[in-house]
Amino acid sequence: MPELRKDPVVGRWVIISTERSRRPSNFTPETFPSSATFSPFAEGREDMTPPEVYAVRPKGGAANSPGWTVRVVPNKFPALQIEGSIDRRGEGLYDKMNGVGAHEVVIEGSDPQLAFADQSVEQIQQTLIAYRERMLDLQKDKRLRYCLVFKNHGAGAGATLEHSHSQIIATPIIPRQVQEELDGAKRYYELKERSVFTDILDQEMAESNGRRLVSTSERFVALAPFAPRFPFETWILPRAHRSSYHTISDPEEFLDLARILKDTLQRLNTALDSPPYNFVLHTAPLGEDDLPYYHWHLEIMPKLTRVAGFEMGSGFYINPTPPEDAAQYLREIVALT
Amino acid sequence: MPELRKDPVVGRWVIISTERSRRPSNFTPETFPSSATFSPFAEGREDMTPPEVYAVRPKGGAANSPGWTVRVVPNKFPALQIEGSIDRRGEGLYDKMNGVGAHEVVIEGSDPQLAFADQSVEQIQQTLIAYRERMLDLQKDKRLRYCLVFKNHGAGAGATLEHSHSQIIATPIIPRQVQEELDGAKRYYELKERSVFTDILDQEMAESNGRRLVSTSERFVALAPFAPRFPFETWILPRAHRSSYHTISDPEEFLDLARILKDTLQRLNTALDSPPYNFVLHTAPLGEDDLPYYHWHLEIMPKLTRVAGFEMGSGFYINPTPPEDAAQYLREIVALT
Repeated sequence: MPELRKDPVVGRWVIISTERSRRPSNFTPETFPSSATFSPFAEGREDMTPPEVYAVRPKGGAANSPGWTVRVVPNKFPALQIEGSIDRRGEGLYDKMNGVGAHEVVIEGSDPQLAFADQSVEQIQQTLIAYRERMLDLQKDKRLRYCLVFKNHGAGAGATLEHSHSQIIATPIIPRQVQEELDGAKRYYELKERSVFTDILDQEMAESNGRRLVSTSERFVALAPFAPRFPFETWILPRAHRSSYHTISDPEEFLDLARILKDTLQRLNTALDSPPYNFVLHTAPLGEDDLPYYHWHLEIMPKLTRVAGFEMGSGFYINPTPPEDAAQYLREIVALT
Repeated sequence: MPELRKDPVVGRWVIISTERSRRPSNFTPETFPSSATFSPFAEGREDMTPPEVYAVRPKGGAANSPGWTVRVVPNKFPALQIEGSIDRRGEGLYDKMNGVGAHEVVIEGSDPQLAFADQSVEQIQQTLIAYRERMLDLQKDKRLRYCLVFKNHGAGAGATLEHSHSQIIATPIIPRQVQEELDGAKRYYELKERSVFTDILDQEMAESNGRRLVSTSERFVALAPFAPRFPFETWILPRAHRSSYHTISDPEEFLDLARILKDTLQRLNTALDSPPYNFVLHTAPLGEDDLPYYHWHLEIMPKLTRVAGFEMGSGFYINPTPPEDAAQYLREIVALT
């Protein structure tokens, strides 16, 4: 059973894999096999993954058989384990608990070589709906308090397989950075009686401004945040207030989100020569569906610079590209979608 | 002038380089020239760096001339600028200030190819003393509130030059992660009336334990922390309570620290085939010399795994090597020093 351990000074939780411990010799650079030769996520290889927990089969068909367009399976090498009780306990002054949680893989299409940004908006829409469906299902498990959806694209961003996929990790604690975001947004709300995210959107979209806007759609805004950690970091925020991603139910809203997400990724690909990137969905904790102070959003971070000692030691980032410049570059790219 | 900008939700400060903005085409991978052919830090090339602010010249000699063993110079491409006033101001709901601060490079020896861990303990001692001297000098500048000392070793850890060096960044704000560490330690002290670091040392060194110890010396302890973010993360802590690094004055203490630091780095080199690594000195803010709740220490992080979307989105780390296993591997290595 993996263990969750808490740093006694800063309160940071880490997941310690106690079962598949990596010995020193296991840290040789990982190979990144091309999907041209082999992908365990390909259609027809459904038996190479654990049995699916969700799939879209437009023409019907049995579970774990071909014919799917999006498929969600438990991670074969999970960081957390779904069975078991949380069992909080001490070790002297330290705190730990069992590494209970879900770790799933969203396989975003049956073509092993088609990158996420190159898929059709309808295909991307299906993936965005899959995130919601999994959140709704995981929310039923009362041990789980947060559901983190993220994507590592490219070896430089931590991906170990080329076949387009994202990951879902549901944890029995609210991760530290999420809690800090919730706390910060709540403080602002208590002071102003307005959501900080609504104020950000109002300020960024005011006619006199617009310097950090990348694009807008009917329901979403893509922008470079005022204080980005990374060059070309881009956030997508819904215009309307909504704290939890999984409360979206209108398929049109997912389609609009798919459009602006594809458009943003294509702009980044054109500007930066198809960089590795991560995106992370920021949403309210499971079971807290309507927080007036919080606003779900997606943070996209191209991997262009290395995070080194300074950032790790201080949490203080040096960004060599002002967001106003990044937004201008991205705005001026003629959309390919 | 670089700008310091604050994220309006989480309060995270970032440094935005507004003068040497990197355009999209500037993000091609950086070359890492071998010091065998060229090092701007080599002896005899003192005119290739800004004029030195500190140097050790055992046989005397003029500033910025050969004959030094350790030399500290302003960074030629500083992230912060030493001249100017802080000038806090708003931009609508956002907060920013001028990027005032110091950014210095500690050149840790005149041999361009001798790695830090392979230097003599006396040479390492001189670097450790240089850190202290720079902190004492920077502390006189009342605009500066924190002095961060860190080392990026190897291209994989963010170094752009092979010649052994570390960096000092002094900032007009206390970095977020440092403040969290101070706050966490203070809360523990208020609850227990004891330092959390002293309690950690007591628990780790109790005869019944020792599972996370790597080595001990007269005045220091090297250990794997209970909740490490990274595989083989190793901390060096002084046995005696002291909150600020720069209040060390006994040369013997620096020598003892040099010995355990060299020994730890050599163990990591042997276990992990000379990995890239970062180390970061954690110390109290400038001007706060005697905090009963805080304990300076050094955190060493070999760079073996990639930080990806999950970690960046959550601040929640997955570590595939339990610290008890890492400490055992490192303990069992016969010290080479």
